[in-house]
Amino acid sequence: MLVVMEAHATAEQIEAVCAEIRAMGFTPHPMPGPTRTAIGITGNQGPIEQAGRLQRLPGVSQLIRVTAPYKRVSREFKELDTIVEVGGVPIGGQGIAIIAGPCTVESREQTFNVAQAVRAAGAVILRGGAYKPRTSPYSFHGLGEAGLQILAEARALTGLPVVTEVMDTETLPLVLEYADMLQIGARNMQNYSLLRAVGRTQRPVLLKRGFAATVKDLLLAAEYILAEGNPNVVLCERGIRTFDDSLRFTLDLGAVPLIKQLSHLPVIVDPSHASGRADLVIPMARAALAAGADGLIVEVHDNPAYAVCDGTQSLVPDSFAGMMRQLARIAAAIERPLLSSVYR
Amino acid sequence: MLVVMEAHATAEQIEAVCAEIRAMGFTPHPMPGPTRTAIGITGNQGPIEQAGRLQRLPGVSQLIRVTAPYKRVSREFKELDTIVEVGGVPIGGQGIAIIAGPCTVESREQTFNVAQAVRAAGAVILRGGAYKPRTSPYSFHGLGEAGLQILAEARALTGLPVVTEVMDTETLPLVLEYADMLQIGARNMQNYSLLRAVGRTQRPVLLKRGFAATVKDLLLAAEYILAEGNPNVVLCERGIRTFDDSLRFTLDLGAVPLIKQLSHLPVIVDPSHASGRADLVIPMARAALAAGADGLIVEVHDNPAYAVCDGTQSLVPDSFAGMMRQLARIAAAIERPLLSSVYR
Amino acid sequence: MLVVMEAHATAEQIEAVCAEIRAMGFTPHPMPGPTRTAIGITGNQGPIEQAGRLQRLPGVSQLIRVTAPYKRVSREFKELDTIVEVGGVPIGGQGIAIIAGPCTVESREQTFNVAQAVRAAGAVILRGGAYKPRTSPYSFHGLGEAGLQILAEARALTGLPVVTEVMDTETLPLVLEYADMLQIGARNMQNYSLLRAVGRTQRPVLLKRGFAATVKDLLLAAEYILAEGNPNVVLCERGIRTFDDSLRFTLDLGAVPLIKQLSHLPVIVDPSHASGRADLVIPMARAALAAGADGLIVEVHDNPAYAVCDGTQSLVPDSFAGMMRQLARIAAAIERPLLSSVYR
Amino acid sequence: MLVVMEAHATAEQIEAVCAEIRAMGFTPHPMPGPTRTAIGITGNQGPIEQAGRLQRLPGVSQLIRVTAPYKRVSREFKELDTIVEVGGVPIGGQGIAIIAGPCTVESREQTFNVAQAVRAAGAVILRGGAYKPRTSPYSFHGLGEAGLQILAEARALTGLPVVTEVMDTETLPLVLEYADMLQIGARNMQNYSLLRAVGRTQRPVLLKRGFAATVKDLLLAAEYILAEGNPNVVLCERGIRTFDDSLRFTLDLGAVPLIKQLSHLPVIVDPSHASGRADLVIPMARAALAAGADGLIVEVHDNPAYAVCDGTQSLVPDSFAGMMRQLARIAAAIERPLLSSVYR
Repeated sequence: MLVVMEAHATAEQIEAVCAEIRAMGFTPHPMPGPTRTAIGITGNQGPIEQAGRLQRLPGVSQLIRVTAPYKRVSREFKELDTIVEVGGVPIGGQGIAIIAGPCTVESREQTFNVAQAVRAAGAVILRGGAYKPRTSPYSFHGLGEAGLQILAEARALTGLPVVTEVMDTETLPLVLEYADMLQIGARNMQNYSLLRAVGRTQRPVLLKRGFAATVKDLLLAAEYILAEGNPNVVLCERGIRTFDDSLRFTLDLGAVPLIKQLSHLPVIVDPSHASGRADLVIPMARAALAAGADGLIVEVHDNPAYAVCDGTQSLVPDSFAGMMRQLARIAAAIERPLLSSVYR
Repeated sequence: MLVVMEAHATAEQIEAVCAEIRAMGFTPHPMPGPTRTAIGITGNQGPIEQAGRLQRLPGVSQLIRVTAPYKRVSREFKELDTIVEVGGVPIGGQGIAIIAGPCTVESREQTFNVAQAVRAAGAVILRGGAYKPRTSPYSFHGLGEAGLQILAEARALTGLPVVTEVMDTETLPLVLEYADMLQIGARNMQNYSLLRAVGRTQRPVLLKRGFAATVKDLLLAAEYILAEGNPNVVLCERGIRTFDDSLRFTLDLGAVPLIKQLSHLPVIVDPSHASGRADLVIPMARAALAAGADGLIVEVHDNPAYAVCDGTQSLVPDSFAGMMRQLARIAAAIERPLLSSVYR
Repeated sequence: MLVVMEAHATAEQIEAVCAEIRAMGFTPHPMPGPTRTAIGITGNQGPIEQAGRLQRLPGVSQLIRVTAPYKRVSREFKELDTIVEVGGVPIGGQGIAIIAGPCTVESREQTFNVAQAVRAAGAVILRGGAYKPRTSPYSFHGLGEAGLQILAEARALTGLPVVTEVMDTETLPLVLEYADMLQIGARNMQNYSLLRAVGRTQRPVLLKRGFAATVKDLLLAAEYILAEGNPNVVLCERGIRTFDDSLRFTLDLGAVPLIKQLSHLPVIVDPSHASGRADLVIPMARAALAAGADGLIVEVHDNPAYAVCDGTQSLVPDSFAGMMRQLARIAAAIERPLLSSVYR
Repeated sequence: MLVVMEAHATAEQIEAVCAEIRAMGFTPHPMPGPTRTAIGITGNQGPIEQAGRLQRLPGVSQLIRVTAPYKRVSREFKELDTIVEVGGVPIGGQGIAIIAGPCTVESREQTFNVAQAVRAAGAVILRGGAYKPRTSPYSFHGLGEAGLQILAEARALTGLPVVTEVMDTETLPLVLEYADMLQIGARNMQNYSLLRAVGRTQRPVLLKRGFAATVKDLLLAAEYILAEGNPNVVLCERGIRTFDDSLRFTLDLGAVPLIKQLSHLPVIVDPSHASGRADLVIPMARAALAAGADGLIVEVHDNPAYAVCDGTQSLVPDSFAGMMRQLARIAAAIERPLLSSVYR
């Protein structure tokens, strides 16, 4: 941490800051400059919780934090890439994992159709929502346990492991009975009670970035899960809120290579929610792989015009298969294979 | 809802859209224009859930929603201002309610000191956190039930009703035993399980705006609570995330008069979290009242330099008393009284 | 400046950074910490232009700048408030200056009507656009010199000095013949050629914040003008772009007290452009004064429904007069007088 | 345009709006709904300039615009892709154009070295700044005409056409003597005087997106140039400002396929300025091509540690050559060739 003094700070004020730093058990390093003095602090083992008392001292202009506030998720803590195994499918290694399925489990028939179609086209994990967080209380909120059962049957049918969203700690035990991977949605990224609860399991977690979360916020949310003992976290970029209302969200693909530098955790991208438009899913999926994503999660519906939610952003099975052929070419161009259902 | 066709849409495509609208049970109103045709829809009682199927039809360019997606919170649903009573203190009427107290309940002594000081200066409700959501898992997370007990004692001592944050449905029953008003924090504004759970009580709720929530999102979050049967919701503007990193958040005071137009619910402002700096709390508190807020929630600490959290934004009791004198003048200027502890 | 090394940086890498700092003529101050070393730099007189070469050295993680990049606009450079005189009206002193007039000069009659009305209600400077930057090339772009002449006649009629926008260096000489104060619009805030050109005059400048400009950007834009020798700059907060589309812009009133701390320059607020809605102008005007603004600039039109631009945000003269009565009460509450046309 | 009435609007208010629409010469289409009436307008040939008078009428809640405000840039106006020829190099066709060179022309030697290196690696246009807009007035602002001369010599040496920034109308005639393509920087995207001036030439223009510009704003800025008669505009996505400060800007790659749908103009991407970090340029360059960009503009410096500006984001020639090899593979994967210097 660096304490920047005001330009007109007196020698007494500077000494008082140094004394306070020493009282905290740390070492001050005053650095006089032409316009102002800065005071470095060494000796702390992590973020200085009570830095507020330095901020309050007379003559102090600004505190600048140097140490990253996260630890277990950082590349410095663990240098090698983490590989998260989801029902036998490795995410985060050389191979690229495509997760696909309907936004919402609507019926046995719809789910089976989509599951078989995406498996045939090369998806390695099935997605589908049984509990849906919706901005409006009057929208459809999912089939609940009946939806989980349908997902389990689709897994038995296709051999694809299943990822589904868990919305709260009450339904977590139930979701754990069915899901191979737990999805934490963007709106719950800072629901710390839920993060801690999934952290106390060993089940793989797909943690979606909140739409106003910085990369640091996302890493700190993952840190909650790792801190409880669950290292199996996959991060997901899914678009952030910006001033531009051309599309529903702004997909922040720059976050992908940045997170790969800062953290050892796998990163995947959701091109469907970001744009909210099926016709932009394929180019953004290609771009996500080219940027270095370890996988994608894509919405597919056999009859999007009749989807109960998010139909406008779902691909039909044929488009999905076409996308997979394009992605195979991009993957080859960056010398990473697409994982195939061979894994099952 | 309005369906905007592409410039080159054919008569057949337009008719197909009209047919689909009729199949949904609604009435299409095609309006040919010089460059394109738009088709109005009437007959629907609320948002059209399955509009996706219109979006998918050939020749359709864009769907434009006209009906507001919320209902019970809207001024059109209920014209008169809602007044929420918190332990006898009315929020949302003519009088302005100042809520104050420490960010976090740290000890009996600290809480009592602050509670007595803010009561003496004119606060009518005591705030204090027993459960604290923190961005980092390694920060202090509150005293839990011991904190709630201290708050209850402070209420007995001062007569001030108490507002405190509830973070999850597990601890809700416990918090209900102690709190006069339940605070839902910004990070939980779209934690729908929690919103529904507090909606099933009749306890007043202080709902803070998420830092990436539009005004519409905030109203929809409140709608969740009202839809479950609890009409006692106070909304709170506390700053949003923007590109400007000069301050921690950008306080969106324009939202205050806007929400007062759109909704009958009371709106208060948190000037402490928005800026993160004590020296900006007082001008922003004055501005919030001048913009039409029904109250404020302000952090006060008897020794901010030693606060376990958010010390840099807490006022000392003397500054708080000075702020109250300024606010009394502003309140007089807009012809609304500050509520005083007379209410207790 | 502070150079933060990577956790695994070697002693050789740290020494190489120190050597480079010495080669630049500055002094390195290495501070070893438990997880990483930081190196402070002293001896520089301002921002280190070629810091890039440090960023490039092996083992360097991050550079942190400490010195503010602006100088002449800063409160540290000049402690006392700057007062900018516009045709005899002082902006930035104890009194609050209300600037008002039509968005655009449309005709002699309209401009005279509005000028007389706003003068009668207490405005001390007349605003009006002769050159209008418009997002679309097909919108009305102002009367040009004919508009400037009408403004000059309105000044002669009412005694109010005149502020009008200058859009480019070509028309600057012409605008200088007529205007008491030059307005630089938000879209031109970083048009450096124009900033330099107005900096070479001594004419007062009203510099509007760009809608994606941080407070630092705004201060640096003002620095361009001061650096050329013109100290007569008034800053104007007019709303920034954020994810929230409820209103046209988000008025950032927190910037007002912040800028007053960082800089000695006067700060005024434009409540008309921020919201784009007449019904929100009055509460936001009250809030701006309460936050500490040195003045306001407000759009008034005698027949807003027929305004050629921005009619939806213009007040009618009666509403303006009502606003002035409310503002007088707010000004009294903060113990600052509204300037009155007595100054003329 | 659609006029949405308030829920409680009376029949008289609705009729008054219809009468006003008829008075404007257009046709109203009232559509009564269960909660409110909406009134469609037909008969207008473009945006309704004076819609403000409708907004003002009693009972009117909201105006919704349907017609896109741009015309000449739109795909509906011209269906086929525009190809802009820059010194013989076609941008916007099947081939992908890589533009590269130093941020700033610093010296003859540096510019020649970089020009030869990027030509050898496959760049087809040389970039380099002679006039540099800088946020601080104390930064280096370019060599001016001497820089332009060096660029012309580099063109003679390598055969690469040259793109360089024009900052104002004063220096435009000079820049026109040297440049094959005129760059309008992000800060000048809404400098309408400059847009009109370059619109009156036939020289190709590289128009960079302002960092707070929506896609619509960018298209309207291009419309200014086309409206003056110059159809040779290439758009450039270069990152927008968002709340996330992890990187300098957030590269909005979703804008690429979106603009390709809305407009016939070519779109390229600047991966250097977006991230501000050389180590992220290559993955983002790959992603830009995969998203469908028609080209890239990339900063290359032979000794970035000693670059006078933006050194931290410049690639060295070796990295650039490595990037080109990767891009060739991505281009092959999407079945578009990289243009090669064969064109010269």
